[in-house]
Amino acid sequence: MKKWSARKAATIIMIDNTLLKPGERFDDLQLSGYHVIQNPDKFSFGMDAVLLSGFIKVKKGAKVYDMCTGNGIIPILAAAKTKADKIYAVEIQPEVYDMAARSIKANGLEGRICLINGDIKESVALVGRDFDAVTCNPPYMPVGTGIINPDDAKAVARHEVFCTLSDVCAQAAAVLKEGGHFFMVHKPQRLTEIIEAMAANGLEAKRLRFVHATIDKKPSMVLIDAVKGGGRELNVEPPIIIYDEEGKYSEYMRTEFGF
Amino acid sequence: MKKWSARKAATIIMIDNTLLKPGERFDDLQLSGYHVIQNPDKFSFGMDAVLLSGFIKVKKGAKVYDMCTGNGIIPILAAAKTKADKIYAVEIQPEVYDMAARSIKANGLEGRICLINGDIKESVALVGRDFDAVTCNPPYMPVGTGIINPDDAKAVARHEVFCTLSDVCAQAAAVLKEGGHFFMVHKPQRLTEIIEAMAANGLEAKRLRFVHATIDKKPSMVLIDAVKGGGRELNVEPPIIIYDEEGKYSEYMRTEFGF
Repeated sequence: MKKWSARKAATIIMIDNTLLKPGERFDDLQLSGYHVIQNPDKFSFGMDAVLLSGFIKVKKGAKVYDMCTGNGIIPILAAAKTKADKIYAVEIQPEVYDMAARSIKANGLEGRICLINGDIKESVALVGRDFDAVTCNPPYMPVGTGIINPDDAKAVARHEVFCTLSDVCAQAAAVLKEGGHFFMVHKPQRLTEIIEAMAANGLEAKRLRFVHATIDKKPSMVLIDAVKGGGRELNVEPPIIIYDEEGKYSEYMRTEFGF
Repeated sequence: MKKWSARKAATIIMIDNTLLKPGERFDDLQLSGYHVIQNPDKFSFGMDAVLLSGFIKVKKGAKVYDMCTGNGIIPILAAAKTKADKIYAVEIQPEVYDMAARSIKANGLEGRICLINGDIKESVALVGRDFDAVTCNPPYMPVGTGIINPDDAKAVARHEVFCTLSDVCAQAAAVLKEGGHFFMVHKPQRLTEIIEAMAANGLEAKRLRFVHATIDKKPSMVLIDAVKGGGRELNVEPPIIIYDEEGKYSEYMRTEFGF
């Protein structure tokens, strides 16, 4: 996200003095006039969230739920890019939730995005059931043996401190209706675990798309669309290549996201 | 394989009158002077086998076993491209086995390739255990509800008439030593099944490589390297692109296989 952040940084707008807290900036998403509050020390969205927003397919009027929403980037992008009716979003960290709440308000999206400060492990109690789609850009790294400070917002966004891959899949399955879609972005290194964790919760991976910085590099991300109660047969789509041979954004990145 | 077959067809050499049966041809592999007998009505190798041969990594002196060997293309390519010591190969169809036997003899590889006419579901009885590597280009398609003639050699090579994905994984696991590698080429559509069938037999997918005709197309094949008793963490490699933007063989295909 380095390149984009740098470009967006030039478009910071201060709406008023109460919108932003120290260290925060207000970035123009260049999409439907929407902006998002970011704080490089707490939570900044990455290319992951942007690409996930382009991978989501939901019908008009769909009820969508974004887990681990961070600063609300996915619900805001989904509000701009889809005809979803109501988007629920849950974030566990109060200060990150607070950033998301201010972003949603600044965009006038309170009517479409319902933001909740809570633990996604209690999703049914927080948001109910019968969702058409669930989205998630979860923490990618297992906690392992190192000690991670649960008060470190960036560490929580990266490591499975508050929720694991298994939790995320179980919660998605719990709130989705039969035939509903779970859209997730994750690391290719964990793909076998992802497929197994999904299958263990009745979610069948139906669509995969790998993201490569350049065509000759390993993929750095994988986008997954799993269906609750879906049948076998996986559709692996053409890869997303971020930069072309000249180091410029590829045609896909330019046409899909306006880079 | 259409393009390659067409090119190779021009290099057919008749060694002697007893080598080839009606409808067969003797194709130059342009590798270590090796040739292979093919019959378009019975068994011709595809790009799958060629790409799998380039994906295999085995150490000098390794003991290798190729299941569902067909006309012996994979053992012959592996003999040329690796320093494997002994390569066992099993083919169930007598007439296809016979083609493989004549190819192995014509290449003077009887000392390195041990060919057996039998059923891979009895692998331990046929070839023993403690293999360093197992290779397989299995039938890709489930039998489903259609009727398939078990005497139709081409149908048997394509459909799971004599062995399923689950059989192939179970047999690979049975003959491999701990830490041994199972190299397989298959259809991306079946990747979730493949990963699960491997895991059910103690084989962990460690390396994946997708093959795309062109960069903007879905992958048509996936190459998988699984390790018996391997730990988690999958390495998805850069994609193999067969044709470049001008419709010519890509640099990878030219440098790796001399196309």
